[in-house]
Amino acid sequence: MSKPSASPRTEVRRKPQRAHHDTATVHAIIDQALVCQIAFNQGGSVHCLPTACWREGEYLYIHGANNSRLTQTLLEEECAVSITHLDGLVLARSAFHHAMNYRSVVIYGRFTAEDDPDAKAAAFKAFVEHVSPGRSPLVRPPSRAELAGTRLLRLALDEAVAKIRNWGVEDSEEDMAIPVWAGVQPLALTAKPLQPEAGCGEQMPPAPPAFIGRA
Amino acid sequence: MSKPSASPRTEVRRKPQRAHHDTATVHAIIDQALVCQIAFNQGGSVHCLPTACWREGEYLYIHGANNSRLTQTLLEEECAVSITHLDGLVLARSAFHHAMNYRSVVIYGRFTAEDDPDAKAAAFKAFVEHVSPGRSPLVRPPSRAELAGTRLLRLALDEAVAKIRNWGVEDSEEDMAIPVWAGVQPLALTAKPLQPEAGCGEQMPPAPPAFIGRA
Repeated sequence: MSKPSASPRTEVRRKPQRAHHDTATVHAIIDQALVCQIAFNQGGSVHCLPTACWREGEYLYIHGANNSRLTQTLLEEECAVSITHLDGLVLARSAFHHAMNYRSVVIYGRFTAEDDPDAKAAAFKAFVEHVSPGRSPLVRPPSRAELAGTRLLRLALDEAVAKIRNWGVEDSEEDMAIPVWAGVQPLALTAKPLQPEAGCGEQMPPAPPAFIGRA
Repeated sequence: MSKPSASPRTEVRRKPQRAHHDTATVHAIIDQALVCQIAFNQGGSVHCLPTACWREGEYLYIHGANNSRLTQTLLEEECAVSITHLDGLVLARSAFHHAMNYRSVVIYGRFTAEDDPDAKAAAFKAFVEHVSPGRSPLVRPPSRAELAGTRLLRLALDEAVAKIRNWGVEDSEEDMAIPVWAGVQPLALTAKPLQPEAGCGEQMPPAPPAFIGRA
């Protein structure tokens, strides 16, 4: 842990040896995410919804329609955002010591709206590049009406914590002789063969983001 | 939509044509999940944490240490659980019409504890089978102390909704002539080569769950 926790909320109580508060670790996990999960309260109830995300500088960005419940509510109160990459199944000799390898980040704070059209256009360009590197110059950029109808929200990464498990089996000494395969089954989000629209045969196919594995 | 929404909370307001309330669809999405995200309130703040999950019958199961904040808090109040499978990047001819294909479920309710040792042993056996089919007879089952130290929680699936996008590009007519590749980049969680512990060379290697793709 190269940096102390920013707040009591980002102190990891369960298995604190897995916690990381340094910016580089938090950023690296966010930069491999295409989707985050947002917890918020609305109408007397807690909610948890997935949405696409990307990072620029010290902010996590999301977007949504101007009239969506999610974006409206997120501007009004604090939320928690979770990002999780499942990296492997840890298969132990005892049922109890089975585990998962993962990299996760939780961010606390309140989103703010970015309403400047130029800033919005730049952020959406970065979003296209995050999803498909090199694509933004090839596609039609958002029109003024499309920009105006889309809300861009950003959340400062000041209060964030990462949690990582990235090692092997931790069986007890007395279980080591059990005759069963033990180790890690690594998992990764992987790009499968492209499904082109009709009439796209002559166009250069896109490459997936560098952080996505190839089939 | 073959079944109506169970409550106002599971009515999908944004893009309701993507909503599904039927049990088979909800179960199928949960059954391909290894991890869920849980939103809950604790200490005056909303939180969002990932944890491993599996389904048996009409319940979603999770587990945790007896003394963990998460399991303790979840027994005391309502939460929302989100499961999301990211299935593809929808690459349109216009930046605005880019999208993602996904299958997601949100469940509302309150977890209850299952404390009966036999029921716990059966549920943890099902968990091992979910993660690694055929493995439970090969590993040491949980001891009485291990069972006693682990909390098993379950959440009824009464108030759940699925949301699915699983189709191609939706560009506007006036963008169809833009000379750029358009279509879907499918994505899938995939099993990579196994990483055995030392000394496991003679044991039969495990197969990943059927819902995980092969590299």
